[in-house]
Amino acid sequence: MDPNNTPTEDTLKVHLGQVVELLEKQKLEETILQHQAMPHHDLVETLLHKQHQAALKQKLDQLRAADIAYILEALPLEQRLTVWNLVKSEMDGQILLDVSDSVRQTLISDMDAEELVTAAEQLDTDEIADLAPDLPEEVLQEVLESLNDQNRARLESVLAHEEDTVASLMDFAMVTIRDDISLGVVLRYLRRRGDLPEHTDKLFVVDEQNSLKGVLSLKRLLINNPEKRVAEIMSREVVSFRLNDAAADAARAFERYDLLTAPVVDDDDKLQGRIRVDAIVDYIRQESDEEMLTQAGLLEEEDLFSGVWKSLKNRWFWLGINLITAFVSTRVIGLFEGTIERIVALASLMPIVAGIGGNTGTQTTTLIVRSLALGLISGGNVRKLVAKELGIAALNGTVWGSLIGLVAYGIYRDPQLGMVMATAMMLNLLVAAVMGLAIPLVRHRLRLDPAVGASVLLTAITDSMGFFIFLGLATVFLL
Amino acid sequence: MDPNNTPTEDTLKVHLGQVVELLEKQKLEETILQHQAMPHHDLVETLLHKQHQAALKQKLDQLRAADIAYILEALPLEQRLTVWNLVKSEMDGQILLDVSDSVRQTLISDMDAEELVTAAEQLDTDEIADLAPDLPEEVLQEVLESLNDQNRARLESVLAHEEDTVASLMDFAMVTIRDDISLGVVLRYLRRRGDLPEHTDKLFVVDEQNSLKGVLSLKRLLINNPEKRVAEIMSREVVSFRLNDAAADAARAFERYDLLTAPVVDDDDKLQGRIRVDAIVDYIRQESDEEMLTQAGLLEEEDLFSGVWKSLKNRWFWLGINLITAFVSTRVIGLFEGTIERIVALASLMPIVAGIGGNTGTQTTTLIVRSLALGLISGGNVRKLVAKELGIAALNGTVWGSLIGLVAYGIYRDPQLGMVMATAMMLNLLVAAVMGLAIPLVRHRLRLDPAVGASVLLTAITDSMGFFIFLGLATVFLL
Repeated sequence: MDPNNTPTEDTLKVHLGQVVELLEKQKLEETILQHQAMPHHDLVETLLHKQHQAALKQKLDQLRAADIAYILEALPLEQRLTVWNLVKSEMDGQILLDVSDSVRQTLISDMDAEELVTAAEQLDTDEIADLAPDLPEEVLQEVLESLNDQNRARLESVLAHEEDTVASLMDFAMVTIRDDISLGVVLRYLRRRGDLPEHTDKLFVVDEQNSLKGVLSLKRLLINNPEKRVAEIMSREVVSFRLNDAAADAARAFERYDLLTAPVVDDDDKLQGRIRVDAIVDYIRQESDEEMLTQAGLLEEEDLFSGVWKSLKNRWFWLGINLITAFVSTRVIGLFEGTIERIVALASLMPIVAGIGGNTGTQTTTLIVRSLALGLISGGNVRKLVAKELGIAALNGTVWGSLIGLVAYGIYRDPQLGMVMATAMMLNLLVAAVMGLAIPLVRHRLRLDPAVGASVLLTAITDSMGFFIFLGLATVFLL
Repeated sequence: MDPNNTPTEDTLKVHLGQVVELLEKQKLEETILQHQAMPHHDLVETLLHKQHQAALKQKLDQLRAADIAYILEALPLEQRLTVWNLVKSEMDGQILLDVSDSVRQTLISDMDAEELVTAAEQLDTDEIADLAPDLPEEVLQEVLESLNDQNRARLESVLAHEEDTVASLMDFAMVTIRDDISLGVVLRYLRRRGDLPEHTDKLFVVDEQNSLKGVLSLKRLLINNPEKRVAEIMSREVVSFRLNDAAADAARAFERYDLLTAPVVDDDDKLQGRIRVDAIVDYIRQESDEEMLTQAGLLEEEDLFSGVWKSLKNRWFWLGINLITAFVSTRVIGLFEGTIERIVALASLMPIVAGIGGNTGTQTTTLIVRSLALGLISGGNVRKLVAKELGIAALNGTVWGSLIGLVAYGIYRDPQLGMVMATAMMLNLLVAAVMGLAIPLVRHRLRLDPAVGASVLLTAITDSMGFFIFLGLATVFLL
């Protein structure tokens, strides 16, 4: 066994470093040759160049698809494509699956239709389905035609289901058996089969109509007497999913019940496929990434070296929304310019009222979004939740409001200003708590994703209301 | 097979609803009896009360540990403890593992030392290690004494390693074999053993010194001729981990190579334990939750019904930090009160400059934090990255700056004010890009978590600088 086979990020960085070094040698030499004014097509023919290329190719041939995917992610576009063209073409399909969406697009746009069809044909039907959204229409058609009837039907069925359903996570590689045979027969069948689909931890037991009757884990198959029949040994209590179940539900069930694979059935209990835990792991990672990106106001993932134009498009939508909401708060302040002109201290103090409101509201929203995702909020406990959050807001308002009121008094020596500050703070924290609860709960009720845009909307409201309450109170009590 | 065994959130909610209904019946009846002024100890003895309790207990006995954990999460404290006391005590250990940290504390504080020791003794050594931080010292001591020498040494070794290392994720339930026996002998050995640890997808092949030589997957065991020897069939290319490897690295490796289990070795290549994918799934979920909570300014998870006081403690740390940074920006504005007094429009416009700066900076930081987590950023590509982000900031500044400058001009009919606004916007976006890059990169270089507090620090800087640049330019050019 290779003792250096612990694939930490450090090992990967060593691989990356070696690849970059070879790429740079090659580049350096191209530059030297160009300075000698050799025409380009002679240049690529030089011996030295070929040597480096061979070394690079050799290095790449030793790596797993997932490791090459990692290296492609970390390289700027030009070097990425150089490496991509040296990769063994029989790994193309797997690597396309392993890279991020954004890098995949750069790789696919560098391939012609024929290469894409070849790459897709190396993959299983469920993997082709994952790739399908990024493939040009004519390539997808050609791939569909190359499949046999069963696989074409499967692919079309997966593509027909919505994203974020169980159907989009499932694969079709599974072993089915009948329940009237002995374990010994199963063992012989597997040996004759000569192969098992990856990640097989259980065999699916079906009847003649392909209805799921139970599952036989490899564990039970191994530890029981081979003369026993499948029906005696199989487990009938199976966690199974339907094609249209939400992917998020399946992910929670995998976590909750520590599953490795689970069968997927249609509405007539006919076995359709299975879900593997590695699809679930990818799904969880992708969801949490999306959440992070959305919260930061990004539409989708950018790879490190996405072009500037692509990056701008990605970032502008939420910036635009933010700008509009910022203008709304600006106009709220504009209403009170007369007041500010007379008491200029208000201009300094107003961002605090707005800012702390936004922060406490975000805390509430985050906890609610999380509890909604865990399915913990139901009609029964909403009232208790509202009482709790309002209680916290009132306490927060009293404590922070008094503190800030005192500090404002300390700076400007105006007790009435301190009182206005404290009152505004308390009222805006109550607004923040109500909105922090209402935005995700209402969005959830309307069957929208409770998280998307929640913090933008919340901040817009706490900002405008913060300015309005503070400057409004000041106008009434201080002028 | 039970066709209703698709454990979606809906099924769980049905269970929850039934439990709540029974709890409420019980409660209602207690209230009625109390109005009849019966003393409490008579009350709990009444027949009706006992009936409801029996129905509730029966319902709970049908549920899996993970489902009861879900129900406990969704119940307010009082009801939660009622249910907890009805749960079969032999499930206590597993349920304590399945609930969130915050609910676990409420459950543990309701148990006496004896109950806790009994619960802990139901668990495997690695599970006790997960529970250990929440157990009272004397309970942990008693549990340690109840273990045999090997398990005590294991538990102490896991507890001695830091959190977030591979050691904290591993478990010890595995099957080891020698490489000089035939597959047939392995099959007979497994059958005689009569059980396999959960999630066993491979057997670990070791020599007399317990050094890892390779792994034999159940798949290869099943499909190969039983007369072949382990040494011929086993795989020597094993993804393995060391005790001190970072848990995050292991998680990425599980994702990358689609692993189900992987062996853990010490520095002498001696087999110490294994990691299972379900520990990885929990780890990934926990990390992404922590990230969300930190970003929202929460120290840790709150359960839905944490007491108000506990919630306040959880939320105050980051609110306090925010308040301090808000005061700093306030004082920056304070410097320019003379300017604002003369041009009051500045007070309305200044939040836009600060706000958009904060938003673009957060976008940059998020992408950098993510790339750092994926190990994609190395010395070699930082310069390209800086160039890209500064380019984007310059373009953003030109476009948004001009737009906002025009709008400001439109509102106040002052071309110079428009120019100042546009220039301030552009400069603050450059500040935001530099800080958005620098904060996570410097924290990473200092071996600190790049994400923690990044957005608070970033917003503090873009706010203060935004106000300073805008009001400073206004003072110079407009007065």
